[in-house]
Amino acid sequence: MENAKLSGMSREALQACLAETQAAYDAFQAKKLSLNMARGKPGPEQLDLTMPLLNALPADASLISESGDDTRNYGLLEGIAEAKKLFADILGAKPNEMFIGGNSSLELMFACLQIAYVKGISGCAPWCRQDTIRFLCPVPGYDRHFALTEYFGVEMIPVPTDENGPDMAMVKQYVEQDETVKGIWCVPIYANPSGIVYSDDTVRAFAALKPAAKDFRIFWDNAYCIHHLTDSPRTPLTINAACEEAGNEGIFYQFVSTSKVTFPGAGVAALNTSRENMDELSKHLGVQTIGFDKTNQLRHVRYFENADNMRTHMKLHQAILKPKFDIVLDMLEQEIRPLGIGEWTKPEGGYFVSFNAPQGTAKRIVQLCKDGGVVLTSAGATYPYKNDPMDSNIRIAPTYPSCDELKLAMELFCICVRLAALEQLTK
Amino acid sequence: MENAKLSGMSREALQACLAETQAAYDAFQAKKLSLNMARGKPGPEQLDLTMPLLNALPADASLISESGDDTRNYGLLEGIAEAKKLFADILGAKPNEMFIGGNSSLELMFACLQIAYVKGISGCAPWCRQDTIRFLCPVPGYDRHFALTEYFGVEMIPVPTDENGPDMAMVKQYVEQDETVKGIWCVPIYANPSGIVYSDDTVRAFAALKPAAKDFRIFWDNAYCIHHLTDSPRTPLTINAACEEAGNEGIFYQFVSTSKVTFPGAGVAALNTSRENMDELSKHLGVQTIGFDKTNQLRHVRYFENADNMRTHMKLHQAILKPKFDIVLDMLEQEIRPLGIGEWTKPEGGYFVSFNAPQGTAKRIVQLCKDGGVVLTSAGATYPYKNDPMDSNIRIAPTYPSCDELKLAMELFCICVRLAALEQLTK
Repeated sequence: MENAKLSGMSREALQACLAETQAAYDAFQAKKLSLNMARGKPGPEQLDLTMPLLNALPADASLISESGDDTRNYGLLEGIAEAKKLFADILGAKPNEMFIGGNSSLELMFACLQIAYVKGISGCAPWCRQDTIRFLCPVPGYDRHFALTEYFGVEMIPVPTDENGPDMAMVKQYVEQDETVKGIWCVPIYANPSGIVYSDDTVRAFAALKPAAKDFRIFWDNAYCIHHLTDSPRTPLTINAACEEAGNEGIFYQFVSTSKVTFPGAGVAALNTSRENMDELSKHLGVQTIGFDKTNQLRHVRYFENADNMRTHMKLHQAILKPKFDIVLDMLEQEIRPLGIGEWTKPEGGYFVSFNAPQGTAKRIVQLCKDGGVVLTSAGATYPYKNDPMDSNIRIAPTYPSCDELKLAMELFCICVRLAALEQLTK
Repeated sequence: MENAKLSGMSREALQACLAETQAAYDAFQAKKLSLNMARGKPGPEQLDLTMPLLNALPADASLISESGDDTRNYGLLEGIAEAKKLFADILGAKPNEMFIGGNSSLELMFACLQIAYVKGISGCAPWCRQDTIRFLCPVPGYDRHFALTEYFGVEMIPVPTDENGPDMAMVKQYVEQDETVKGIWCVPIYANPSGIVYSDDTVRAFAALKPAAKDFRIFWDNAYCIHHLTDSPRTPLTINAACEEAGNEGIFYQFVSTSKVTFPGAGVAALNTSRENMDELSKHLGVQTIGFDKTNQLRHVRYFENADNMRTHMKLHQAILKPKFDIVLDMLEQEIRPLGIGEWTKPEGGYFVSFNAPQGTAKRIVQLCKDGGVVLTSAGATYPYKNDPMDSNIRIAPTYPSCDELKLAMELFCICVRLAALEQLTK
């Protein structure tokens, strides 16, 4: 097939291309692949990296925390002091502003929403007693964030993003003038799925917000804060430093976890917010549980000892993941760039490549891939209500398959992008 | 002091007794004790029993579950199959009707309430959109249950209990005739705090209920199902068998955990309900988390292997706890029985002795104990809204202190009961 922009081709040339691409697709289908690239899951070799974690708390260890508390027993709702310190060091936060939870940061986000919905926060009426609750949703974004707000009946407003982060003029206008806007979903570093890192100006603009609603919070999901793909990662301004400077410490809930540091199923999640917010949340969280798994917190602390060791550990993940991202990017560069039928991000960290196909083809591409044996994240999933108005964005999650599988999957993906574009052009 | 019923004494004798008891109390205060008997916490020697659990999942183990899933990774919201089987065997339930959660059964109870409150269940309007929501609360009961329902603004109706369980005529009338009654808190075996075991007739009466509300559920907290204090424990009818017989499988949510089998902070909790209820709950639970800690589920299964081993393990707890309960009961028998100033339960399992002091003295007794250096569960805590109309019930939790500490604490307790009674009689 000619390796040139499809937009400049004659109808005959496009028809020939289509026939050729269809044949390539049919040949792929005959291979009967069964691969899953739907989720940002670490691969088995990444999970093997932290197997020694399981020996970090052997039967002859003391399970007494620094504070003298027995981590095996009830109590210590906010988590053990040494875990607070570890996670605070990772984030650049204060240990007494850290709440250490169970294995899921999503669970902590849910809890924050639930408390505002059922009980109300900062003296405001519970959201279930307010007429309309709105959240700003930078797009493309994380489908599980959107599912959380949808669960509570929150109206979601998409906010465009560029390489510096969300459109802060639009954010400022909504947050400062609309009392029904109660939150915004942010993944500030290696955003899911775009991979962008918020600029310092963006972080400062967040810290400077003067919300119309007293119960407005920035949901700052720092899921990928140490998940670099380069040896010289950028050092963006933290929300903590920016908000301290702005005297606006109570405006954010920050989330972090070791789900993609140790084990997704058995890591430790944490929440960081002002002491005043912590006190309010803890009062309510103490009703739903007596405490999270403190022995697993201790296991993580004994294993890593400090934040620097955890950062060093992340280089092992990088060594496994970088070649996978390179496969994706090289293949797109080689197969899609010359045809002019797509744009994509080149992330310096995180778990995703965000691919924008020609408008109106994303759903078709995902369907073609599925029929060819490769499951991708659903088209539209990166938008609130699963509604991508352009039907363009596809989240590529290269981490779980092996390199060989990934090559095959990306070969199919490129064929499907081409096929969908040609179908559209020859309609 | 005379060892006779206070009620038969002359005023002079009572005054003399009071002086003598006050002196005993003062002498105790001089000892400056600092003991805590407030909560049903296992003692350190109980926690030591399961230290080998920590070695049950070493770094060289396979963490792949029977189903072929990697327990380290995301997924398997309902838990691993082998844990479903283990907990099903403990309860006499079906494995596919088990949801295996994190470290807290309280968290699962909260989730069930939260789902009904926010989303509604069985096609009914969410509780936050219904005018009045009521729960029946057998008393005395568990303060954390009451805190859960209070959190959601549920109106709590106390239901008297006797040695066979709650007053089932009253339960039936409320449940079958009042559509605002959405649930009832039950601890069917070794109830908290009374220690009673529901009779088979009581269990059958629960299974036969025809609720007015479609979103009514029995919250069956089987926290102490294998926590026996005798060598020949009773074998009460299970709610599962009774409801299957009555064709009423969807009426209950049953809860169980290893909090008092392995570690309170790092055990495994489970929920058992009909498959239809499970599907409804899972749909919603899948929004708030991708999955609970499956490696800790696997750790427990590898350690215990089967339900019989877990039951055998409980004999080690019994050996530690029985002497503690004997200290409490012997002391009450010796110090309080002759004076006729209290009644109490003699539990065959569980974590508590329920003590009924003369009306109007419970708060005073708890305060006296506190000032004497022994913290008890607050008086009133065993009633909804912390309101014991008789000001009589006190929950004694003998498990955490050592035997020596417990003897001292009970000595003080008996002095305080006597002192409060004498203060009242000489007023």
